[in-house]
Amino acid sequence: MTQIVSEAMARSMEASSLIRAMFEEGARLRAEHGAENVYDFSLGNPMLEPPARFREAVAEILGGGAVGLHRYIPNAGLPEVRRYVADTLSAETGLPFGPAHITMACGAGGGLNTVLKALLNPGDEVLSPAPYFVEYDFYADNHGGKLVHAPTDAAFQLDLAALDAAVTERTRAVLVNSPNNPTGVVYPEASLRALADWLRRASERIGRPIFLISDEPYRRIAFDGIQVPQIFPLYEHTIVVTSHSKDLGLAAERIGYVAVHPEAAEGALLGDALVLANRILGFVNAPALMQRVLPLLAGESVDVARYQALRDKMLPALLEMGYECVRPQGAFYLFPRSPIPDDMAFCRLAQEERLLIVPGAAFRGPGFFRIALCVEEAVIDRALPVFERVLAKARG
Amino acid sequence: MTQIVSEAMARSMEASSLIRAMFEEGARLRAEHGAENVYDFSLGNPMLEPPARFREAVAEILGGGAVGLHRYIPNAGLPEVRRYVADTLSAETGLPFGPAHITMACGAGGGLNTVLKALLNPGDEVLSPAPYFVEYDFYADNHGGKLVHAPTDAAFQLDLAALDAAVTERTRAVLVNSPNNPTGVVYPEASLRALADWLRRASERIGRPIFLISDEPYRRIAFDGIQVPQIFPLYEHTIVVTSHSKDLGLAAERIGYVAVHPEAAEGALLGDALVLANRILGFVNAPALMQRVLPLLAGESVDVARYQALRDKMLPALLEMGYECVRPQGAFYLFPRSPIPDDMAFCRLAQEERLLIVPGAAFRGPGFFRIALCVEEAVIDRALPVFERVLAKARG
Repeated sequence: MTQIVSEAMARSMEASSLIRAMFEEGARLRAEHGAENVYDFSLGNPMLEPPARFREAVAEILGGGAVGLHRYIPNAGLPEVRRYVADTLSAETGLPFGPAHITMACGAGGGLNTVLKALLNPGDEVLSPAPYFVEYDFYADNHGGKLVHAPTDAAFQLDLAALDAAVTERTRAVLVNSPNNPTGVVYPEASLRALADWLRRASERIGRPIFLISDEPYRRIAFDGIQVPQIFPLYEHTIVVTSHSKDLGLAAERIGYVAVHPEAAEGALLGDALVLANRILGFVNAPALMQRVLPLLAGESVDVARYQALRDKMLPALLEMGYECVRPQGAFYLFPRSPIPDDMAFCRLAQEERLLIVPGAAFRGPGFFRIALCVEEAVIDRALPVFERVLAKARG
Repeated sequence: MTQIVSEAMARSMEASSLIRAMFEEGARLRAEHGAENVYDFSLGNPMLEPPARFREAVAEILGGGAVGLHRYIPNAGLPEVRRYVADTLSAETGLPFGPAHITMACGAGGGLNTVLKALLNPGDEVLSPAPYFVEYDFYADNHGGKLVHAPTDAAFQLDLAALDAAVTERTRAVLVNSPNNPTGVVYPEASLRALADWLRRASERIGRPIFLISDEPYRRIAFDGIQVPQIFPLYEHTIVVTSHSKDLGLAAERIGYVAVHPEAAEGALLGDALVLANRILGFVNAPALMQRVLPLLAGESVDVARYQALRDKMLPALLEMGYECVRPQGAFYLFPRSPIPDDMAFCRLAQEERLLIVPGAAFRGPGFFRIALCVEEAVIDRALPVFERVLAKARG
């Protein structure tokens, strides 16, 4: 249709147009009714402030009189920061991580693109349990690959039989995300252990190692006192991609990293490929000031209890009304079942009441909808009667 | 050969292995002889500090008590920062730029990838005058395209006949860089006007507009009192990509922007495509703190006179010795003719004397070599006798 924008981009624009239309309608509603009269649960935008130490750390770095802080640095990241990340991972996993296993990345989005650029040949497949963060589709497509998905079970937990049925000779990697966006579920260690065993068998079957890419930006946003299990000790061909968007509240500053298991197949070559991919994709290096900040924030995080409090306010109230919803143990989302099968229609119904939620179809989870708990408690208080009203309307 | 790293990445790693070997040898020399005994002119790493106002600006932003500074922002960038960039461009070009024409980018490398993602269909060609910054090869390849090059004239100025001979029906864009890396030359306005006229004719011939992508990170690094001419007023299908790596000394902080001519073909659609490309390539948004800093640094720049002083010290000394070199009027490079036809061999000869320079072949300019003037004056003082000695050895 157009000769200016590339065909791939035109397709991507089409694919994201429904959600975009929703966001535009949200903006229109805010303009017309005032922001306080629009109940916006559509955006997963981490709302908690970085730890207080963050501003001190920046001031210390910039106030120290050091020169050369903002010059180009190695594409892999600052050696001392990679060392810090490696040491932290070693302590958490018991594995011998060194700086060579770490590539600092422009957030998890940047890191995932770097990993897929390094791994994918044209037509290669990345397999992900659904529902999932649909940017994954774009990330795989960017590098000539294809995102393939397999269903999870009724509790959004891993279904190995479904994954097994979806593996082909082109499967290059399985991509998981726990705590999960959009469901908030955490995969327990036994489940990850079974996944690792299955990955070994599937790798053997197709004749090359299937990588496990674990997208972990929500690792530290976990509730009920649980620890999100480490995948590294369970499977050697693991690549963890993460960011500090959520745990340090630095989403827009684009800081994260990619970590490759010390015993991954051809790990040294893969590490070199990641560094080159980081460079030639135009990231060049993760923003340097944010890299320098990280070691000064060791052990710090946003106030995770506040995200738990939002879940604890919202979830029982919705269940009480009659919504069905799996209990999330991390991240900051609820993923309830849509009261009517057509989740798009339900979200449009909600929008008429100025309640903004995202249809599950946008996450390959049709029949559900996503609530992002990135709001003040008062917004929940005001929104609960609206959720009740919309449910009544949906039930007609 | 390997089954782990993708074939495209393996090829890219091979393509960059020669230069990489040089850098590794440089590191080895520094370790063995001490950094002060290695004359390293290999890296174009902007060495000048950001303006003093930079640290104040960061302190003002973070000290103001504002919340939400680090949350996700629009993928296109902060509205007020896009407005600031648009107003600046409007003042400089006389054209009606608005925020819709600006996408904030993770440096020029990020910006160029975003533009090529938005424009290129598989097999499309990007035409660049050589020598050129060879990352362009990778950037085009990342998005299924191909970098095609055409020679410049003996003074490294545009040769329209050569460009004309290289245009095909697949030519999607011409990519220029003035002041130029590696030659330091600046294209005069008359030359750009002729380029624009030729682009109109070539576009008509192939039946669709050929975009002019102007990569301008060195725009403000210009010498002898010259102003680098604006391309925008000359050609409507122009996209300017730039960063503040050089003019504000913020290379490692990854801040720049893409600006689309207000009258470019399907400009609104292209703008939307750039924003989506910025998102799905994983940049998501240009680092927010650095965006916020920009309007507070209006009119500021690094001390450009120091780069000119380095040129004025180095160039006459080399000419006096007998090197041939086109006089650069911007950026911070010299691109002299190699005293022997084989520039790789000459750079190896220099390396034996612990003098690190980059062969022109690395920029598709064989028979020349690049000197990056990102060093203190004292390094030049110590290096000049070495340049003389290497010349004598080369002449045998």
